[in-house]
Amino acid sequence: MLRSAEPSTESIARTLERLRETQPLVQCLTNAVVTGFTANVLLAVGAAPAMVDLPGEAGPFAGVASGVLVNLGTPHAEQRTAMLEAVAAANDAGTPWVLDPVAIGVLPVRTELASRLREARPTIVRGNASEVLALAGWSGGGRGVDATDDVEGARPAAVALARDTGGVVAVSGPVDLVTDGEREARIAGGDALLTRVTGGGCALGAVIAAFAAVAPPFEAAVAAHAVYAVAAELAAEPATGPGSFAVALLDALAFVAAEQIAARAAVS
Amino acid sequence: MLRSAEPSTESIARTLERLRETQPLVQCLTNAVVTGFTANVLLAVGAAPAMVDLPGEAGPFAGVASGVLVNLGTPHAEQRTAMLEAVAAANDAGTPWVLDPVAIGVLPVRTELASRLREARPTIVRGNASEVLALAGWSGGGRGVDATDDVEGARPAAVALARDTGGVVAVSGPVDLVTDGEREARIAGGDALLTRVTGGGCALGAVIAAFAAVAPPFEAAVAAHAVYAVAAELAAEPATGPGSFAVALLDALAFVAAEQIAARAAVS
Amino acid sequence: MLRSAEPSTESIARTLERLRETQPLVQCLTNAVVTGFTANVLLAVGAAPAMVDLPGEAGPFAGVASGVLVNLGTPHAEQRTAMLEAVAAANDAGTPWVLDPVAIGVLPVRTELASRLREARPTIVRGNASEVLALAGWSGGGRGVDATDDVEGARPAAVALARDTGGVVAVSGPVDLVTDGEREARIAGGDALLTRVTGGGCALGAVIAAFAAVAPPFEAAVAAHAVYAVAAELAAEPATGPGSFAVALLDALAFVAAEQIAARAAVS
Repeated sequence: MLRSAEPSTESIARTLERLRETQPLVQCLTNAVVTGFTANVLLAVGAAPAMVDLPGEAGPFAGVASGVLVNLGTPHAEQRTAMLEAVAAANDAGTPWVLDPVAIGVLPVRTELASRLREARPTIVRGNASEVLALAGWSGGGRGVDATDDVEGARPAAVALARDTGGVVAVSGPVDLVTDGEREARIAGGDALLTRVTGGGCALGAVIAAFAAVAPPFEAAVAAHAVYAVAAELAAEPATGPGSFAVALLDALAFVAAEQIAARAAVS
Repeated sequence: MLRSAEPSTESIARTLERLRETQPLVQCLTNAVVTGFTANVLLAVGAAPAMVDLPGEAGPFAGVASGVLVNLGTPHAEQRTAMLEAVAAANDAGTPWVLDPVAIGVLPVRTELASRLREARPTIVRGNASEVLALAGWSGGGRGVDATDDVEGARPAAVALARDTGGVVAVSGPVDLVTDGEREARIAGGDALLTRVTGGGCALGAVIAAFAAVAPPFEAAVAAHAVYAVAAELAAEPATGPGSFAVALLDALAFVAAEQIAARAAVS
Repeated sequence: MLRSAEPSTESIARTLERLRETQPLVQCLTNAVVTGFTANVLLAVGAAPAMVDLPGEAGPFAGVASGVLVNLGTPHAEQRTAMLEAVAAANDAGTPWVLDPVAIGVLPVRTELASRLREARPTIVRGNASEVLALAGWSGGGRGVDATDDVEGARPAAVALARDTGGVVAVSGPVDLVTDGEREARIAGGDALLTRVTGGGCALGAVIAAFAAVAPPFEAAVAAHAVYAVAAELAAEPATGPGSFAVALLDALAFVAAEQIAARAAVS
């Protein structure tokens, strides 16, 4: 049985303040669709992004970065080499790293890559239910980037995966689930417009890597989801559609106050 | 002589509703400059984007996608391989695919690639006048991505190209022309600010692929141009420049009602 | 001793008008994070962007472009080949080109490439203090993309580098410095929000290349910095965070009037 663990919203707010003070350097090896948005999300929340994904550079940089994101959205040949290099160096240096196994299960090249990356024991895995099921080896995946399975249905696979890697697994959905195999937390809130902006989930993976630089993995994943959800709620207020929502999300990530997090975060 | 064919604005509105209900999965092999914007345009209009352009993945995915876009804006070596793979699989599966021959004629690598893709008989070609002239073999192309020829001047080449490929050809300009070699339609409207946003035309190619998933090629191309033009007009109203216009375009594509399309589309 | 050279704000305003009239074609070989934003900045200011960075195309295109940007943010293998090709062709054709040596010093692949590009004598170098120090061979660089050195501290290196290449060197910071080894100018203004938008500096490199198509290198670099700084000030007024600031910056670059430049530019 899992223990329900609820970091207090006050401790989440303090973690956000620590992130903004230290401006952690987050290395992203991410997909071509969302690089710009991801860098802007990191800058907005207070981190320093560095999209270093060249073989020969990715490894050395992972040794000095504060957190690393490996996102499998468009893993071209050079980037696959760089990912394996970065992950090995991150493990050597003790740098936390986040794996986002985008669309694995259905697409063969990334599925094979994800399997190798899983063996390297990611600090935190973030994906939708289909991707977590596929990475855990419980299913053949969904319809590309869409989540066709639901979060609670993926819970046993998430727990098993976390126990196997010794890390944390976060499953995104209307209510997000975070588990380290022993504890679990759920984060509600957010806004459906997040699913109408490309990179909404991918950028969350980068935010998790930023929080992992200033908090232990379980607390980092919960805090990242909670801050992102509150910012999405604030962004939805002035938004008149997905375009203005994406702009407002960047603004909200920058101006959201620790007190707003403490007041609004819906962690249970 | 061509027959003038004007799908009624009511039928265009119904096609948009069908797109939103079915959320077609649109695979994009597109250029590095516009991937994010293109995905956001597809999400806004109600489709599901998937930027799958890896060799070994692009082919299998084209067999399950509802529509495919092949845009030649930045065709790096791996992507060229993936494009040929995707097009062969799309043809095998009967998946409609759109070719956007960006800047061919002037630039040698993509011109040679476009010639091979033309032989694969694209369901729909979308380009500016210079690009259509070049793909039809009637000219040496324009000044890169700019249209230096006009739409009506490219009409004979568009008709000949459509008859040769057995597909539809759409020529973008102040008034767009769509022909299948027998019928033709013209779509007015839109806004000049579209030419001040990078990817304004490239994203339209993706929208055509989305409509091709829910309507025959000629009707799909006309509907896509008409919906895009109305959304651009709606976006121009609040816009104070190209930045706010791009944001408002995404909002407008999401909220434009079928009745607005029926009332405003300028097809003749 | 350097001579202080202050192009009048009236002459900067006239240079902007000339840029808008001639719409120079600017070829960008730039990083994957900022391609879309860079193209949008060029379109907003009145130039015509073309992101041509394929081997076999980059060289021929550099011969017809009006200005070329080479930005080392994510220099993958194909792009490195294309950069060397473009620079050779630009030099043959007398096309001005701008080198932005992003994060050199710390990262080995791009540092070696920058050294070869420096030998090709860039018309204009634009970077932060750390990057200019590294390119001049005076230091080992900073913490990735961040400026950890200050502008005035990099002044002697900038002057030496300009004398060595026979070109212009621009050092970005709270107050920017531009020198050709004999003259120098400083540009104040701008807004701190520029540092919270990814590609804020990278896009400035592209704007410099656009100005270099219509003015001599020193005057072009000063004018680009001055126009960008005034646009950033105008954009900061309505902005409520980094998201809305980036949108407003594109609008401001498009609508800023020559008289506003003449009235507000802070060149000394």
